[in-house]
Amino acid sequence: MRREVTLRDVAELAGVSSRTVSNVVNGYANVTERTRERVQRAVEELGYRPNVLARNLAQGRSGQIAVVVPYLDTPYFSELLQSVIRAARVGGYNVLIDQTDGDPEHERAFIADGSRRLLFDGVIFSPLGLDQQALTDRDPTLPLVILGERSSDGFFDHVGIDDVAASRQATEHLLDMGRQRIAAIGDQPYATGEAAQRRTRGFCDAHKGRGLTPQEDLIIQTPRFNRIDGAQAMNHLLDLPEPPDAVFCYSDLVALGAIRSIVSRGLRIPEDIAVIGYDDIEDGSYSNPTVTTISPDKEWIATTAVERLLLRIASDTPPPGLELRAPHRLIVRESTAGRTPDAR
Amino acid sequence: MRREVTLRDVAELAGVSSRTVSNVVNGYANVTERTRERVQRAVEELGYRPNVLARNLAQGRSGQIAVVVPYLDTPYFSELLQSVIRAARVGGYNVLIDQTDGDPEHERAFIADGSRRLLFDGVIFSPLGLDQQALTDRDPTLPLVILGERSSDGFFDHVGIDDVAASRQATEHLLDMGRQRIAAIGDQPYATGEAAQRRTRGFCDAHKGRGLTPQEDLIIQTPRFNRIDGAQAMNHLLDLPEPPDAVFCYSDLVALGAIRSIVSRGLRIPEDIAVIGYDDIEDGSYSNPTVTTISPDKEWIATTAVERLLLRIASDTPPPGLELRAPHRLIVRESTAGRTPDAR
Repeated sequence: MRREVTLRDVAELAGVSSRTVSNVVNGYANVTERTRERVQRAVEELGYRPNVLARNLAQGRSGQIAVVVPYLDTPYFSELLQSVIRAARVGGYNVLIDQTDGDPEHERAFIADGSRRLLFDGVIFSPLGLDQQALTDRDPTLPLVILGERSSDGFFDHVGIDDVAASRQATEHLLDMGRQRIAAIGDQPYATGEAAQRRTRGFCDAHKGRGLTPQEDLIIQTPRFNRIDGAQAMNHLLDLPEPPDAVFCYSDLVALGAIRSIVSRGLRIPEDIAVIGYDDIEDGSYSNPTVTTISPDKEWIATTAVERLLLRIASDTPPPGLELRAPHRLIVRESTAGRTPDAR
Repeated sequence: MRREVTLRDVAELAGVSSRTVSNVVNGYANVTERTRERVQRAVEELGYRPNVLARNLAQGRSGQIAVVVPYLDTPYFSELLQSVIRAARVGGYNVLIDQTDGDPEHERAFIADGSRRLLFDGVIFSPLGLDQQALTDRDPTLPLVILGERSSDGFFDHVGIDDVAASRQATEHLLDMGRQRIAAIGDQPYATGEAAQRRTRGFCDAHKGRGLTPQEDLIIQTPRFNRIDGAQAMNHLLDLPEPPDAVFCYSDLVALGAIRSIVSRGLRIPEDIAVIGYDDIEDGSYSNPTVTTISPDKEWIATTAVERLLLRIASDTPPPGLELRAPHRLIVRESTAGRTPDAR
C-alpha cells in the first residue's frame, strides 16, 4: 500500500513546523498570509489529506453510529434503515450498518466488546438473539438505543410500538367481521421470541375480551417471520379437518406467504379466509389482494431513535433511559375488506 | 463525554513506560511475566481499551469497506448487501453502508472527496446519478469496484450481468409465446439511465432479430424502477385503444406494480397480458401470480466484488481493472406460464 502523506511531509516541503501546517489545515487565524500560501502549495503538491479520523479520535469520537439489525433483506428493516440513515446524516453522522443474522454471539460482540468501540460513537440496536439479561451485561459506557421488543432497563432508550395492544386490535378486527376460527401464525415460545410472545398475548387478550377462548391448535409457531414461514404454516392450517376462517400473521411477509398458499388452493380472500399482517411494508399495498396490516410509524421510530442516540453521545452524564412508545394504526385493505370498486 | 483512558494512564498506574504497556497490549514477547501481570492489572482497573482504530490508522487502514447504493429499501440491493456483508466479514472487514438516493453530488463525494477516505479502505459502489465521466474523475488512489450498469475504464473492476443479452432473452420469451404487442416499462432516455438504455436495446434487438419493429408508443419511460412506476405505466398502457398483450418490466418491482394494475381491472395474467420482470427478488416467487424474471446471480456478484476489492486493498500496485460478467438465467413462473397444478 502507498504510504499516506503526513503533516510532517507537508511541513518539511513548506519549510515550516508541523504545528504551523496544522494551524493552516484547521483554519486557525494565527498564521501570516504568506505562510498560509506556502503551506497550501505544499498540501496541493503532495496531495495531502487532513486525517479526519485521527482528528475525530483526538476529540474522542468517530463521527459514526452503528445500526445493528438481524436481517437487511427484511423489508421492515430496510425501510426503517433508510429513514435512520437520513436522520443521522442531518445530525452530521455516517451510519455503519451491520447485520447479525440473529446470532447471539455476534450481537453480544457489538454491545459488549470494547475493542470495536472506537469505530462508532453509539449504537441503534434491534436485538433478536439476545435476551434482556444479555443487554444488561453490555459495555456500560456505550450510548445505546434499542428498537423492537425489549424493555428499557433505565440505562438505554427503547423505541417501539405497543405490540400487545396492536395485536389485540388486529385480532379484534377479525372478530368484528364475525370470524369464528381465527388462527395466529408466528408464535415463538423461547426466551428470545419476545416480539412473538407479545403478539400471541394480544391475540389471546382479544379473544378473552369477548368471552372467547383461542384454539391452541390454531396458534402456529414459526422459526422466523418470512414468506416461507407463512406459506408452510398456512399449508398446515389448510390441511386441518376444520381450517380457520381468518388468520392473524405476525408480519406482512408471513401474511404474503399465507396468501400465496390460500390462493394456490383456489380459495377466496377474504370470503373463505380473511388475512391480516403486521409492519405495513410497501409490498402489502401492491399484492393481490392487498394486505390489511398494523402500521408502526417507522419515520417516528427512526427519527426518535437517532435523536435520542445523538443526545446520549453528546451528554457528559448519560440521560435516564426512556420507554418511547411509537404510534401505530390499523390499515384496512383487501385481505379483510375485499375488493372495492375504487381499488388502486 | 468521558475522557478515554490512554496508554499513558495505564503506564502511570503500573509504574512502567508507555512502550512497555504497548508491548503487553500488542502481545509482544519482550516483557517479563511479572511486568505483564502488573500492566494487565492496571488495564483492568482503568478499563483501558486498546485503540483499534488508532492502530489501524498507524498501519494506514481502517478495516472497513464502504458499500454505496442508491436505495436501501430496494429488495435487489438489500438482498445483494446481505451477501456482501457476509463475504466482507469472512475477509475480516466491517461494512459501512451508505445510500445516496441517486444524488450525483452525494455519489461524487464518496469517490472523489479524500477527506472521508480514511473511514474506509475501499468502496463497492453502485452508481445511479454519476455518469462514466464522473467515475473517471475520482480519487485515483481509492480501491474501487463498481456494480451495475457502467463499464470499467481499466482502473476499477466492474461486476454485472450482460443487460443487453438478458433483456433480449426476456423479450424473446414473450415473442416465443406468440405475443404481438409487447410493451416495455422502465426506459430512461437520459445520460444517467444507462441500465434502462441497455434493457431497451435488448428489447429492440429481440424484435429486430425476428424481423419485427418494436412499437415506439409501447416503450414507457419511468423515473425509477419501483412498484408505483409499474402501476402508473401499466394504467397508461391499459387505457390505450389497443393495449399490449405482453409487457417486459425493467425490474420485478415494476412488474409487481404492473400486475397489480392488470388484476385490479379484472384482466387475466398471462391469458390477457403476460408479464416478465428483472432481478429475481424473493417477492416475485410469492406474489399472485408469481413473476417470470431474469435472475442475476447475486451471490456471485457479491463474493466477486468483495474478493476483487480486498485484492485491490492488499495490492501495492493496483491490479488492472476487469470487466466481470456475472451469470444470469431466465426463470419462468406464472406471469407467463400460467398456473400449474403443482404451483407452490
